[in-house]
Amino acid sequence: MANFGGHAIPGSFFLLFGFWLTVKHILQHYWRTNQPKGRWRTPPFFKRMDYVEGGFQVFASFVGIMVEQFVVDGPHARLSNGDSWVKLMNWQHSTMYLFFGISGLALVCSTRFKGLPTGVDRFALSLALFVEGFLFYYHVHNRPPLDTHIHSLLLVAVFAGSASTMLEVFIRDNILLELFRACMFILQGSWFYQIGFVLFPLSGPEWDLTDHGNMMFVTMCFCWHLATALLLVTSTSGLIWITVSRCSGRGRDVEIGMRKTSSNSTSQKGLLEESDEE
Amino acid sequence: MANFGGHAIPGSFFLLFGFWLTVKHILQHYWRTNQPKGRWRTPPFFKRMDYVEGGFQVFASFVGIMVEQFVVDGPHARLSNGDSWVKLMNWQHSTMYLFFGISGLALVCSTRFKGLPTGVDRFALSLALFVEGFLFYYHVHNRPPLDTHIHSLLLVAVFAGSASTMLEVFIRDNILLELFRACMFILQGSWFYQIGFVLFPLSGPEWDLTDHGNMMFVTMCFCWHLATALLLVTSTSGLIWITVSRCSGRGRDVEIGMRKTSSNSTSQKGLLEESDEE
Amino acid sequence: MANFGGHAIPGSFFLLFGFWLTVKHILQHYWRTNQPKGRWRTPPFFKRMDYVEGGFQVFASFVGIMVEQFVVDGPHARLSNGDSWVKLMNWQHSTMYLFFGISGLALVCSTRFKGLPTGVDRFALSLALFVEGFLFYYHVHNRPPLDTHIHSLLLVAVFAGSASTMLEVFIRDNILLELFRACMFILQGSWFYQIGFVLFPLSGPEWDLTDHGNMMFVTMCFCWHLATALLLVTSTSGLIWITVSRCSGRGRDVEIGMRKTSSNSTSQKGLLEESDEE
Amino acid sequence: MANFGGHAIPGSFFLLFGFWLTVKHILQHYWRTNQPKGRWRTPPFFKRMDYVEGGFQVFASFVGIMVEQFVVDGPHARLSNGDSWVKLMNWQHSTMYLFFGISGLALVCSTRFKGLPTGVDRFALSLALFVEGFLFYYHVHNRPPLDTHIHSLLLVAVFAGSASTMLEVFIRDNILLELFRACMFILQGSWFYQIGFVLFPLSGPEWDLTDHGNMMFVTMCFCWHLATALLLVTSTSGLIWITVSRCSGRGRDVEIGMRKTSSNSTSQKGLLEESDEE
Repeated sequence: MANFGGHAIPGSFFLLFGFWLTVKHILQHYWRTNQPKGRWRTPPFFKRMDYVEGGFQVFASFVGIMVEQFVVDGPHARLSNGDSWVKLMNWQHSTMYLFFGISGLALVCSTRFKGLPTGVDRFALSLALFVEGFLFYYHVHNRPPLDTHIHSLLLVAVFAGSASTMLEVFIRDNILLELFRACMFILQGSWFYQIGFVLFPLSGPEWDLTDHGNMMFVTMCFCWHLATALLLVTSTSGLIWITVSRCSGRGRDVEIGMRKTSSNSTSQKGLLEESDEE
Repeated sequence: MANFGGHAIPGSFFLLFGFWLTVKHILQHYWRTNQPKGRWRTPPFFKRMDYVEGGFQVFASFVGIMVEQFVVDGPHARLSNGDSWVKLMNWQHSTMYLFFGISGLALVCSTRFKGLPTGVDRFALSLALFVEGFLFYYHVHNRPPLDTHIHSLLLVAVFAGSASTMLEVFIRDNILLELFRACMFILQGSWFYQIGFVLFPLSGPEWDLTDHGNMMFVTMCFCWHLATALLLVTSTSGLIWITVSRCSGRGRDVEIGMRKTSSNSTSQKGLLEESDEE
Repeated sequence: MANFGGHAIPGSFFLLFGFWLTVKHILQHYWRTNQPKGRWRTPPFFKRMDYVEGGFQVFASFVGIMVEQFVVDGPHARLSNGDSWVKLMNWQHSTMYLFFGISGLALVCSTRFKGLPTGVDRFALSLALFVEGFLFYYHVHNRPPLDTHIHSLLLVAVFAGSASTMLEVFIRDNILLELFRACMFILQGSWFYQIGFVLFPLSGPEWDLTDHGNMMFVTMCFCWHLATALLLVTSTSGLIWITVSRCSGRGRDVEIGMRKTSSNSTSQKGLLEESDEE
Repeated sequence: MANFGGHAIPGSFFLLFGFWLTVKHILQHYWRTNQPKGRWRTPPFFKRMDYVEGGFQVFASFVGIMVEQFVVDGPHARLSNGDSWVKLMNWQHSTMYLFFGISGLALVCSTRFKGLPTGVDRFALSLALFVEGFLFYYHVHNRPPLDTHIHSLLLVAVFAGSASTMLEVFIRDNILLELFRACMFILQGSWFYQIGFVLFPLSGPEWDLTDHGNMMFVTMCFCWHLATALLLVTSTSGLIWITVSRCSGRGRDVEIGMRKTSSNSTSQKGLLEESDEE
């Protein structure tokens, strides 16, 4: 898929996935911080979100593999034609999708079966990102300098995401790590678009793939993408937090009112102490 | 041992070891999760497993060293013949076996003597893997590109296993890490076979050791081995978990029945709460 | 800003910032260790310090960006003049300042809003340092050996600071890590001066940028800067600790005296035990 | 000090230091595991050991610096003779000693003043090892392959020691880490001897510094040194543990006997439980 579309499609998926993760984790964080300490059972709403996410990952990976295999100039599930390998690029992309599919499966299973070890979903996602980076790393040999450089910048986002997700296996429910993961997905998505713009410009002249100035600009541009991703994640999560606080604030008032009638002083005092402690 | 057999034998050992680890750790995990919190003494069955594992490691390492030294074209325990070193390859393999032997010894000792610091067995295993990777790293200089590449992919499995085992020194009884270790051993074993197939093909034409396409295929192939290893570990542990649950489920019903007659309400309530909380 | 001043200005800022951090953290540490365990609310004085620090970071970053853009030979906010990029160096510096500005903003916000996840300020600072190192890393290609070497030594200080700050996200209130961060800022500051002295000597002959002896000296010189930074942080914090202990010692005596009149034995016994335990 | 003696002297120091650390930490570990949980005050004996160790470090570093500066062909505290740097090698060694001196000072201070943050001694030691490795890393450029290789193997021991010591800042009183540190010092010491033997052979022919076989042998030899270091640390600590257990076993019997007369059942039951739990 060496064209603009071939970079825009995965880019869009990663962007969307990053936003979805931001929304999901900020809602979970809100729920965690506003929960009295006794009740720790995940509400069905979050489980359903995880089912949707995992199921979508499995579905998208399956579609991705099929498309990579059976496009017009694809390998059509043939690996070798006797003399040489057939369309290794498409096979490599299929392999990447496979691991994201496994990650989706792990998420569904770990939501469904309580017996599975905690963190197995994060572990599988970290592995999927590692495999993506691992394949890209050997993907980019023997190319012009700017091409190599722009792809190796992608690896920074991929491996940073993989490392932070691996950390989440051991450090659970840390909102910073969760949002950082979302941020890395958004960064990866927007950087895919950038790669598309640089290597296959929609209009205007071609980029000089050997110019040192271009490489310096691209490096800096990566930092701007990072800043934008941070801004997007922060503003999205801020907006959602405020919205949810208002909605549930009203809901809670009602709840408190209801509690008041039955057991007056206790519940309210508990709420006040809670907001104090934080 | 530069032939197919020389790669198949260690490969088989690592494969078997990986499966053994999967079985052992999933049984231990089952036992841990189904234990009431008071009783934390390791049952004799697990101790016996550890003795068997450690003893086998020591034995296999000893046999390995002997074979490497006293095969027909081996060094016969001579290190130098005055002018140059004798069969350094065999000496290096012997050194690797030595450290796995030390690791086996550490496992036996740490099972036998309670005073030894916890984690000393994992530490020794991590060191053995590190030494293996360390020697392999300097092993592969001055070889054709594909040969170097296929061996350096082995290092990924070896060092990943070493790192995760080192982590186990500090994070105890984490089933994810334990199964990951098993997975890395299986990956290492199956990759040894792959190396054998590529460098010493049993039938068909020789591989072109300088072709870029071959290198890209081998990289991707490593990911498939990883996926297969994950599948094998997951399905094996799933199967064992279900089997053990059924068997002990029946056993427990009997146990509960027996407890019921003596102290009726307390024990059962405790069991229900337990399965709820998890 | 390829002149001595261009290295002295950021150097001075980093030196000052390092001293400020030393003073702030040693005061916080004193307050932490001398606090009875019940009261854990940050006093307003420390909040005000954080506001000042964050506000200053934002202000200085803004000024820095403006200066880099609108100096006489700056890019004047133009990125490209059709054919090539305009003054990428200035743009890169602006990008670095931008991330330090974000870090300052994060500090102000996390001090102001209690709901923000703990550690978000350290995370942003770590990111700012990482971006600084990341841009410098690609900054120094195609330069004479000594120039490259002296800049890559700067990276040691930058990345060490970034890593230790990232660690602070998870390990809170560890005075060693906090002072190490301060030390890394001082080292960075003094090393900026050193770079200025070497590349743009104020007097005397130019340095031979290809001499191996010069490179060896510069490496060793970096260690001396490190030793000096350690000495400065240690002596500063020691001095402040002793000063504060004396001042508050008198204050405490009064406090104890006051408590004595009301609840005699309890409070004093608690204080004695406290100083014992440590 | 480019001769055999120049490698044997630091080697002997590191060997001795490694043994000292083994003895010290195994005694501390014995004391920790045999202490009832209430009493956690370090006995004066261990404090005295730390004073001796720190004092010796400071003294040896001072002597080392003096020797490096004022030997016959030393720099005599002159850094530059106008045109070029004077004896940078000796200056680099002096710098290494300086940091070990700082580490000794930190140990003495952290033993003397209870207010210092825990782990400051380990931090300083880790830094000293890092600086040693850092200087060695740039030390070995432009040398024959075997010379470079044998020195870079030394770096493995140095950086592994530095990393594990840094870990000790956060993971306190872990006997495995402490003995690993001792092991790395012994390895470093014995490897200094090996470097001396290879580069300045006392008898027999010179080593061919470009032969690939020699490099492979040296790599393997490093692993044998590691195995020997492990054996030495294990056997030393085992011996000391058994000796101390016997001695204090008799002492304890007496103690128990004395306790028995006063408060019979309680104390003994406590001791039994203790040895059970472990």
